[in-house]
Amino acid sequence: MTPSFGFACTDANEPMKPWSFERREVRDDDVRIEITHCGVCHSDIHQARNDWGWATYPLVPGHEIVGRVVEVGSEVQGFQVGDKVGVGCMVDSCQECASCHEGLEQFCENGMTQTYADKDRRDGQPTYGGYSDQIIVRDKFVLRMPEGLDLAAAAPLLCAGITTYSPLRHVNLQKGQKLAVIGLGGLGHMGIKFGVAMGAEVTLFTRSKSKEAEAKALGVAHVVLSTDQAQMDAVANTFDYILDTVPVPHDINPYLSTLKRDGTHIIVGVIGPIDPPVSGAQLIIGRKSVIGSLIGGIAETQEMLDFCAEHGITCDIETIKIADINEAFERTVKGDVHYRFVIDMASLKDVRQAA
Amino acid sequence: MTPSFGFACTDANEPMKPWSFERREVRDDDVRIEITHCGVCHSDIHQARNDWGWATYPLVPGHEIVGRVVEVGSEVQGFQVGDKVGVGCMVDSCQECASCHEGLEQFCENGMTQTYADKDRRDGQPTYGGYSDQIIVRDKFVLRMPEGLDLAAAAPLLCAGITTYSPLRHVNLQKGQKLAVIGLGGLGHMGIKFGVAMGAEVTLFTRSKSKEAEAKALGVAHVVLSTDQAQMDAVANTFDYILDTVPVPHDINPYLSTLKRDGTHIIVGVIGPIDPPVSGAQLIIGRKSVIGSLIGGIAETQEMLDFCAEHGITCDIETIKIADINEAFERTVKGDVHYRFVIDMASLKDVRQAA
Ligand SMILES: [Zn+2]
Ligand SMILES: [Zn+2]
Ligand SMILES: [Zn+2]
Ligand SMILES: [Zn+2]
Repeated sequence: MTPSFGFACTDANEPMKPWSFERREVRDDDVRIEITHCGVCHSDIHQARNDWGWATYPLVPGHEIVGRVVEVGSEVQGFQVGDKVGVGCMVDSCQECASCHEGLEQFCENGMTQTYADKDRRDGQPTYGGYSDQIIVRDKFVLRMPEGLDLAAAAPLLCAGITTYSPLRHVNLQKGQKLAVIGLGGLGHMGIKFGVAMGAEVTLFTRSKSKEAEAKALGVAHVVLSTDQAQMDAVANTFDYILDTVPVPHDINPYLSTLKRDGTHIIVGVIGPIDPPVSGAQLIIGRKSVIGSLIGGIAETQEMLDFCAEHGITCDIETIKIADINEAFERTVKGDVHYRFVIDMASLKDVRQAA
Repeated sequence: MTPSFGFACTDANEPMKPWSFERREVRDDDVRIEITHCGVCHSDIHQARNDWGWATYPLVPGHEIVGRVVEVGSEVQGFQVGDKVGVGCMVDSCQECASCHEGLEQFCENGMTQTYADKDRRDGQPTYGGYSDQIIVRDKFVLRMPEGLDLAAAAPLLCAGITTYSPLRHVNLQKGQKLAVIGLGGLGHMGIKFGVAMGAEVTLFTRSKSKEAEAKALGVAHVVLSTDQAQMDAVANTFDYILDTVPVPHDINPYLSTLKRDGTHIIVGVIGPIDPPVSGAQLIIGRKSVIGSLIGGIAETQEMLDFCAEHGITCDIETIKIADINEAFERTVKGDVHYRFVIDMASLKDVRQAA
């Protein structure tokens, strides 16, 4: 076994605390990674608090992981000690189903293995995430971090990045098309950056007038205050695509009205009911659609990282020490972060020494 | 003006009654059609009863119209007296917007002109539908009825037919793909026929076990009782497309579970809220989509009619006399029809003589 140290919560009502635990030994096809940074995704908080009902404890969150390879199994090809690498939301899949064969491991028909709060598919042991000194991951699920990307600012690409990049590629967003993004948070600000880099004319829908300046700084052409009916009416039948990053139930009907004929509303945030319900007429008149999207496959995640290096895209982050993780959770829930917290894992040493 | 005779209702609470009225004179680009048959669409009843709130009275319903050309305007090309023709849900559009240029007049950005309960875009006079001896329609909105199609049984192709044909073409249904149809009524039975003719493996979802034999006779490969959880579980992740013809709010989440990854749920029936609401997770996990569709453009309607002639497809109908229209409305509301009532317009003469 591999002695490890990180932060975990032992129950839905407990705060995150230092925890010593063991990971598996390095298998022939495993890569052991010393984690330098890990992003704080809203999902981490949902899982820590068991909002979705399938958490397992002790729970070590974190699926926006970057670091350096410190050990490779005997059969690993393509990774060497010292390589800068990343790990996202998945650490394994069956590799045999149609989805895996198409490079869509996130839709593995036998269930992909999540980076934390899941069970390893070979030994059945719990998976633990990136709020930790190291992680051991099957080589096929390790991403290469391209040169030129700041590791800390690149960490959230592994979840927030691919979650917004993949649907824009899937719907085939083209240069000159009109994309609207709903919500300016961890996902939304990445959606804007990708949309702009892909050549789209990007509009931000927001409920807060205060976001206008920061949105413009990210490259949006227009900001529409969704609470202002006149502004909403002015963009009726305008957008080819809407990327909806809002993580809580909300009425999408007013946004559907702003889609062009054949436009698509992309859901990446809401897990629960899309409530109030969508009106059939909103879809029928204009042949509009609502589609969901879930992260992206491993090959597409690598493509996204390479795209980011080429276009100089990273996330806008606030770096924190791991000792401040509970406060970061609170601030994330309140939306008080621009736009993602990233844990500097060097700070784990201070905690260990104090312990 | 052109003296006309038909059936109308004068108020949302009144039954359909004989009515003498005037249509416009034949313009240079108009075709005057003696109506031989008109289908009874559920929309006719909704409009007669003002269920949608935009009915105008007196209201002459009917947008599944077939008949023979009896007069053509001086500039009409391509139609001659004696031609067998049809008219569907639209009688005009702006002809200038992007949708019109793409042959998608149903989505005319200036609003298409509906066959009844609308206003003519040149003279502003009310439009009256096909429960009538004749109709005068702009040539561009007149369809050619191919040889070999029984006119009575072909009438419902103009609405029920194109409503189900168009989305299957739009999603590009391919031979060998798996299509499920929800509901076995006027729309559903046509969806089945088109799906089978396009080479798909068609399944019917129904809440009534009694429909199994008739569905099989229409060519479905499987019938799934949607009220039987075991049967629903057995078809999880099975279908490429679902054609949902149910005209009232219903829970589509159980059906979304039966779509494959990247599958599409097509809404053609529900105008109001899709209630209970769709779950975001149902869309996100499997990258599924819900799309609406509205009839089809004029060129596609002609293509559909030609497809029907080629494949020997018409609707399964019950022919009625127009004097029985109120009873037909009641039976349609109850679903007591296989699968569409079609009015034999020769029966209008009996009413006129009795009057
Ligand atoms: Zn995440
Ligand atoms: Zn798989
Ligand atoms: Zn109709
Ligand atoms: Zn138009």
